[in-house]
Amino acid sequence: MIGLDLSNSTLEEIKEENLSELLNKIHAKKQGFYYTIDDDQIIGKINRFAEKNSDFEHIVVCGIGGSALGAICLQQSLGHLYLNKLHVLDNIDPIMIKELEEVIDYSKTLFIVITKSGGTVETLSQYDYFSKKIKENGYELSDHMTIITGPQPNPLRDEAEKEDLEVFDIPEDVGGRFSVLTVVGLLPAKLIGIDIEKILKGAKVGRDNFLSPDSKNNLPYQLAKTQFDLSQKGKTINVLMPYSQKLIKFADWFRQLLAESTGKDGKGITPTNALGVTDQHSQLQLYNDGPNDKLFIFIEVKNMNPEIAIDSPYKTTFGELMQTEKNATAAALTKNGRPNITISVDSVSEETLGQLFLLFEGATAFLGELMGINAFDQPGVELSKKLTKKALLK
Amino acid sequence: MIGLDLSNSTLEEIKEENLSELLNKIHAKKQGFYYTIDDDQIIGKINRFAEKNSDFEHIVVCGIGGSALGAICLQQSLGHLYLNKLHVLDNIDPIMIKELEEVIDYSKTLFIVITKSGGTVETLSQYDYFSKKIKENGYELSDHMTIITGPQPNPLRDEAEKEDLEVFDIPEDVGGRFSVLTVVGLLPAKLIGIDIEKILKGAKVGRDNFLSPDSKNNLPYQLAKTQFDLSQKGKTINVLMPYSQKLIKFADWFRQLLAESTGKDGKGITPTNALGVTDQHSQLQLYNDGPNDKLFIFIEVKNMNPEIAIDSPYKTTFGELMQTEKNATAAALTKNGRPNITISVDSVSEETLGQLFLLFEGATAFLGELMGINAFDQPGVELSKKLTKKALLK
Repeated sequence: MIGLDLSNSTLEEIKEENLSELLNKIHAKKQGFYYTIDDDQIIGKINRFAEKNSDFEHIVVCGIGGSALGAICLQQSLGHLYLNKLHVLDNIDPIMIKELEEVIDYSKTLFIVITKSGGTVETLSQYDYFSKKIKENGYELSDHMTIITGPQPNPLRDEAEKEDLEVFDIPEDVGGRFSVLTVVGLLPAKLIGIDIEKILKGAKVGRDNFLSPDSKNNLPYQLAKTQFDLSQKGKTINVLMPYSQKLIKFADWFRQLLAESTGKDGKGITPTNALGVTDQHSQLQLYNDGPNDKLFIFIEVKNMNPEIAIDSPYKTTFGELMQTEKNATAAALTKNGRPNITISVDSVSEETLGQLFLLFEGATAFLGELMGINAFDQPGVELSKKLTKKALLK
Repeated sequence: MIGLDLSNSTLEEIKEENLSELLNKIHAKKQGFYYTIDDDQIIGKINRFAEKNSDFEHIVVCGIGGSALGAICLQQSLGHLYLNKLHVLDNIDPIMIKELEEVIDYSKTLFIVITKSGGTVETLSQYDYFSKKIKENGYELSDHMTIITGPQPNPLRDEAEKEDLEVFDIPEDVGGRFSVLTVVGLLPAKLIGIDIEKILKGAKVGRDNFLSPDSKNNLPYQLAKTQFDLSQKGKTINVLMPYSQKLIKFADWFRQLLAESTGKDGKGITPTNALGVTDQHSQLQLYNDGPNDKLFIFIEVKNMNPEIAIDSPYKTTFGELMQTEKNATAAALTKNGRPNITISVDSVSEETLGQLFLLFEGATAFLGELMGINAFDQPGVELSKKLTKKALLK
């Protein structure tokens, strides 16, 4: 169960509204993020693949942006904080590749190469390097690599066909930053033992909420309306601050979602990620006394498990201390006139994550309509890609 | 050697100026960050401690904010990206403690507890928990724990005396966010094999530059003046974007430095961290097409080692691809009228890090003078601390 507390938003109560028209506009954009979660066929394929490949000691994801952030978030949220067989290579720094090679053993490593376009230069470069290394080390490429890409003909798909690699399709109507609940996020998650059916179960609860025409019960709408109204009042920075070590990468996932979806036509909300209580000792001075240009979105976890008691300096538990600090921080910000809202979840679980993804994806869809922009394209990244290509071809 | 390229700043050239008066104002604030680096005595003590404690397999730092970010940055920049015996516990989430305990063995673990005030509630709570656990496991506390704290009498120092723990003093005139080059950052670094003398050598080069009264040659001043002039023109967000996987935590370190130092009296620059090339696939849409309210500060590494060749999709190396993308991103931003500047370093080395710390610390000192605020206090965090205490005592 997810809660949304808007009492410190500094705005008046959101007036009741029938959302049917807004929802129709969203449906007209034909985005798949809220119905591909019904695709049981892909789940079957993922489960069969995971069973066949359960012996690998290392999983390396080659992918960047939307092809990486979902898996990173799921690993951090639902995997182990210190034991990790999943390595997401979402950069091309050569030192990262060298030091990764110092810890993996090619005989026990599975590579998942993910790019929806099939033409992402960073990912194709990684494919070039690692496919050769796997062969040089004497292994069959098709035993150690699988491909996740869009359904259209593309360079990576051609390679996969030539090398006889198993291919998973990313649905055409799901953009990278909305793809965590497709095979893009679910296959890596399944391979490290996460219960993906439960994630999807939570996502379906989140979807029902997103599609509810009754504005009072539609949390994605309430969130989007708050973000939008405050952005009109100069709060153009959104700080997502979970009070949970497990959710720090959820904030990174959100950061792409909000930035790429809203940052266009000179408009947009700038996301920044923060972590409670850690960033109280890094950012709180700025949040309380700096420019009043931010909306703070807290995520609080009601059951902070396990219960670990402390005697000193206060008789409490670590979980209670964390929640007390969250409440104090929210109270201080409120006293200083800084708008802040709180999303609460019972625990950091598969179901919760599924709900949270749909909450923020749904809110982003509403935000696009409220701002009058297309939340699903990203024309502003093309120039840099073109200039890179030009420089490399000369 | 550090370079600073301001040609895409969109500002006119910084006019030549004698900085003696500004530097005198800074000296009058009696801050130690630029002269404690001469303290050879503490280096001797650190070296002796590290030699005596070289057999530990895990080092756990209990500390938060300025007591954590320096060590995290040094580990990421100069340690191994995937092999790591240093765990910085800069949060109090109970799940983090539980999962840390699943990977450490108390018999082979050294704890370093760091708080300058000696009264930080999060750190004292960690001290309470781990000191008991070490004893419960049958070990002598003084063999497994050391304390780093301010020279004044304080609760943690009292504990250290009672338990006969070795104590390292943090100089009184160095604030948490400026303390990376004191024992706070250097002891953890030394314990994971980093050459701290070389870091200090670089820092001294950086200090000479910071104290140069000739504005044309003073990079900290040039950086601060650019940040300040652009903040006056509405560029109130600074994006620090290193094109180096190793420097991603340097951006986190910077984030505290800038936020806590400048965010006061309703003024301030909001820092956000980004990573090249990774965040081209997450934030670039917003950077190019969103609100023009940001200054982009790139850090580029000239020698991207090791050299790893790629044949496809372009014949290049990973290092060259990274640099080409950085140049293309800077060119695209410039074409879109978005101010961006580039700091360049030869490589990510001990000397470079030392110089970079002094570059940004010096710039922050100048920024305080230019903005007319005290860059060295943090009054805005007190209310939240008071409210926490009140809630826990009731």
